[in-house]
Amino acid sequence: MKNTFGQALTLTLFGESHGDTIGAVLDGIAPGIMIDHGYIEEKLTLRRPFGKISTARQEADQYNLISGVFEGKTTGAPLTVLIPNENKKSGDYTRGLPRPGHADYTAHEKYHGFEDYRGGGHFSGRLTAPIVAIGAILQKVLSEKGIVIGSHIKRLGGIDDRDFNDLGDDLTTLNQKRFAVLDEEKGEAMQKAIEAAAAEGDSVGGILETAITGLPAGLGEPWFDSVESLLSHALFSIGGVKGVAFGEGFGICDLKGSEANDALILKDG
Amino acid sequence: MKNTFGQALTLTLFGESHGDTIGAVLDGIAPGIMIDHGYIEEKLTLRRPFGKISTARQEADQYNLISGVFEGKTTGAPLTVLIPNENKKSGDYTRGLPRPGHADYTAHEKYHGFEDYRGGGHFSGRLTAPIVAIGAILQKVLSEKGIVIGSHIKRLGGIDDRDFNDLGDDLTTLNQKRFAVLDEEKGEAMQKAIEAAAAEGDSVGGILETAITGLPAGLGEPWFDSVESLLSHALFSIGGVKGVAFGEGFGICDLKGSEANDALILKDG
Amino acid sequence: MKNTFGQALTLTLFGESHGDTIGAVLDGIAPGIMIDHGYIEEKLTLRRPFGKISTARQEADQYNLISGVFEGKTTGAPLTVLIPNENKKSGDYTRGLPRPGHADYTAHEKYHGFEDYRGGGHFSGRLTAPIVAIGAILQKVLSEKGIVIGSHIKRLGGIDDRDFNDLGDDLTTLNQKRFAVLDEEKGEAMQKAIEAAAAEGDSVGGILETAITGLPAGLGEPWFDSVESLLSHALFSIGGVKGVAFGEGFGICDLKGSEANDALILKDG
Amino acid sequence: MKNTFGQALTLTLFGESHGDTIGAVLDGIAPGIMIDHGYIEEKLTLRRPFGKISTARQEADQYNLISGVFEGKTTGAPLTVLIPNENKKSGDYTRGLPRPGHADYTAHEKYHGFEDYRGGGHFSGRLTAPIVAIGAILQKVLSEKGIVIGSHIKRLGGIDDRDFNDLGDDLTTLNQKRFAVLDEEKGEAMQKAIEAAAAEGDSVGGILETAITGLPAGLGEPWFDSVESLLSHALFSIGGVKGVAFGEGFGICDLKGSEANDALILKDG
Repeated sequence: MKNTFGQALTLTLFGESHGDTIGAVLDGIAPGIMIDHGYIEEKLTLRRPFGKISTARQEADQYNLISGVFEGKTTGAPLTVLIPNENKKSGDYTRGLPRPGHADYTAHEKYHGFEDYRGGGHFSGRLTAPIVAIGAILQKVLSEKGIVIGSHIKRLGGIDDRDFNDLGDDLTTLNQKRFAVLDEEKGEAMQKAIEAAAAEGDSVGGILETAITGLPAGLGEPWFDSVESLLSHALFSIGGVKGVAFGEGFGICDLKGSEANDALILKDG
Repeated sequence: MKNTFGQALTLTLFGESHGDTIGAVLDGIAPGIMIDHGYIEEKLTLRRPFGKISTARQEADQYNLISGVFEGKTTGAPLTVLIPNENKKSGDYTRGLPRPGHADYTAHEKYHGFEDYRGGGHFSGRLTAPIVAIGAILQKVLSEKGIVIGSHIKRLGGIDDRDFNDLGDDLTTLNQKRFAVLDEEKGEAMQKAIEAAAAEGDSVGGILETAITGLPAGLGEPWFDSVESLLSHALFSIGGVKGVAFGEGFGICDLKGSEANDALILKDG
Repeated sequence: MKNTFGQALTLTLFGESHGDTIGAVLDGIAPGIMIDHGYIEEKLTLRRPFGKISTARQEADQYNLISGVFEGKTTGAPLTVLIPNENKKSGDYTRGLPRPGHADYTAHEKYHGFEDYRGGGHFSGRLTAPIVAIGAILQKVLSEKGIVIGSHIKRLGGIDDRDFNDLGDDLTTLNQKRFAVLDEEKGEAMQKAIEAAAAEGDSVGGILETAITGLPAGLGEPWFDSVESLLSHALFSIGGVKGVAFGEGFGICDLKGSEANDALILKDG
Repeated sequence: MKNTFGQALTLTLFGESHGDTIGAVLDGIAPGIMIDHGYIEEKLTLRRPFGKISTARQEADQYNLISGVFEGKTTGAPLTVLIPNENKKSGDYTRGLPRPGHADYTAHEKYHGFEDYRGGGHFSGRLTAPIVAIGAILQKVLSEKGIVIGSHIKRLGGIDDRDFNDLGDDLTTLNQKRFAVLDEEKGEAMQKAIEAAAAEGDSVGGILETAITGLPAGLGEPWFDSVESLLSHALFSIGGVKGVAFGEGFGICDLKGSEANDALILKDG
């Protein structure tokens, strides 16, 4: 598969940054799942840039579920989401020098110069919008089954958020935050770092940390579809992701085996 | 894959008979292929019912290529075709008795009653329209590489068309015919048989025969993706197809091995 | 996939007619299934040529399950079967003229002359032995779930066996027959036809008819993995198979729609 | 796929730590590739524990290519490698407490207690032996095409090896080292750290850094099969791998966008 991910549940992604419409097809979803449009809109809103932080494109993401939904519920047939591109300024884009940190040069070599180069074309981060819409549907279903996924900004611009605490933070509340940190003071400092960099036409890097609670034991396949394999496969599709680690991650490299096992037991346990 | 076919080149099909829009995503197509809209429209026209034969729904099939095409050529990114459903009369359709020879009952069991039952929903023959649009793009590319595919109605309502002749019939001409037969007189008799059955609210069965010329040797995989396997897999997706045979087909069962080999040599020549 | 079939349950086939060992890997089988060696051996015996009919190679098919089985039961991990090739006479085989009706020429073109040409190499019918061994394991599980599959020789050398009767023939008994026909007299005539052809160094063609009872409704996918698509895909992997039909098959082409639906209702009934 | 990785080229892995034989099937390899047994043995030797560092099991890894090779070259058909398990002591293993840092508990839950629990069963690191054998064949082909892959131990037991230098280290030489470091003195210190931990029945963690030279531009797919996605998918199959990073990796999180881009340009050349 080229632009498809997953086996029992497969997502196929299409569209370009400056085409009329982008979208995705989700195949394999169970029938009878109620579509919660408020939840999808909430997630699409969280995806969009906000405040003084970004001058990036702003658009309403008026998604449309054109197949696989009947009388408000999934049918079991392929579910297709379309999202129009509203805020495109094709005039702004002519084929120029490939931008560092983007796929422009790769796309040019891969597609022999026939790629839609406007705004990164098919490689654009814009295509995460249909992923978020589909993800919202799935995240809702998982949470109803007791599987909750939550992320916070662990480090950004050299500032560390506090760790998830052992008693368990409320991931649902965390997920609704406009700027997802556990410690609001640290979050304000991070936002100032972003604004300071933006004022110089620059940006800052960071680390996201995700917790998943309620997973049953025994998920994943021995070779090669481990949970870590599948998650990293999906995560490294996002252009800006440069590293993925689980548990103690790279920090584990300085632990002895006995310490690492203790760490694992505390973490999983 | 559920609604996806192919590996290097994959087609994903979505939509329902009475939804707003049906469509397909083709992934893996080479960049730089010129889109010939006249050719696509010609094929979509051939797909539509015509004349006195059918009272079936008539619609313009105003397809739209919403991704994967830039400046008139394929980009290499996923190519998506959308076709609106114009001629739907939802009021006509309420959940009734499953129709014989359709997937109504199967869909109901498979999707636990959540299926879009209007007009066959996702199982409707209406979904062959995006297949034809995508197929037209691919058939054009193949013909430019010297691979020509042509079909005629070999038998219909008990009337036989003549066989493909050994010198090779002109498949391109055959493909443009509104009623694809090699012997026009037989074709007229077949059309009368269709009209006679239609007059009684009935229909007739038939056999299509397809010739492909220009294929290189060595296509297909030993186990399990033989050319025959892949073609039959695709063909049996069409609800009305009840048998697929190659070469002499079921006729070969009455030949001895020596005769069958002679037949093969003449056929593959 | 090239030499792999299936998604939830996948079979990968390897080996050559004149290599030391052929085999297959089955992945996705549920854990805890008791392996019935007697049943596997019974099926392998039925696969082997017998009597005066054939002078083809005779070997014991001493299969070995080298992975995926622990304490007599499947573990859930990949199950691998190996079968040694005993009766190979490499000296007999030198690269000669490609044989009609075999894949010799196709293999040569596909693999640029590097193929193992001895006895058909990887394309040999010999590779059906591991398929039969794996199939026996699966057929046993299915029968325990009430899904029974049975086949008879419907037509051979111009002689027709009687049809499956409406009350249901005993498929289990049929499956144990050395020469699987419903009417023993017809079976004897067929065997004489085979022997007569063999005496002239020739062979005869035929048609197999298979019945499956106990299948739940709703199996298969709308596009493109219908039950018919998947079965034909697998069946056309066998070199000698030239046609696959379901229900009334090609006979349906001479029925009117109303008659065909009646036939379907009786058949699926 | 469960125990299969790759699309054009697929690897299927089977066997258990304490079964008779483990192995792998590689499908999709081009015909005509000369098998270099010395190179395979060299890589299998490097995989085995050595010296005072480990008391782990020692065995000769007498691999056997049972299919897909003819007259010393690949045929294009599936290539199967078998490796016998020699040094198993089943008596040592009875079902005990699941070991921390191993998949024992996961396997038990996943396979409902039917798993082969001896020595980790199918989840055992022992199964990397056939991966190494197949990898050696592929690494040889790649190096002949100018694509060279080399790894060193970047950090172990708190000791850092020097970085790859800008002029390019000789990866081929690096790959032949018994203990792959760029700075031999650091390597000796690392080995002492391993021995010291081993003396206390403990082990140490570390980081491997890999360089690949000669890759053409344009590899990978936009969504979701990026090069990073596919590599991390494969790497996280190995139980001990807890993090995968590319380029500056997690260090990039403290760089500004402008600095990160500079780093990328220096890195990619």
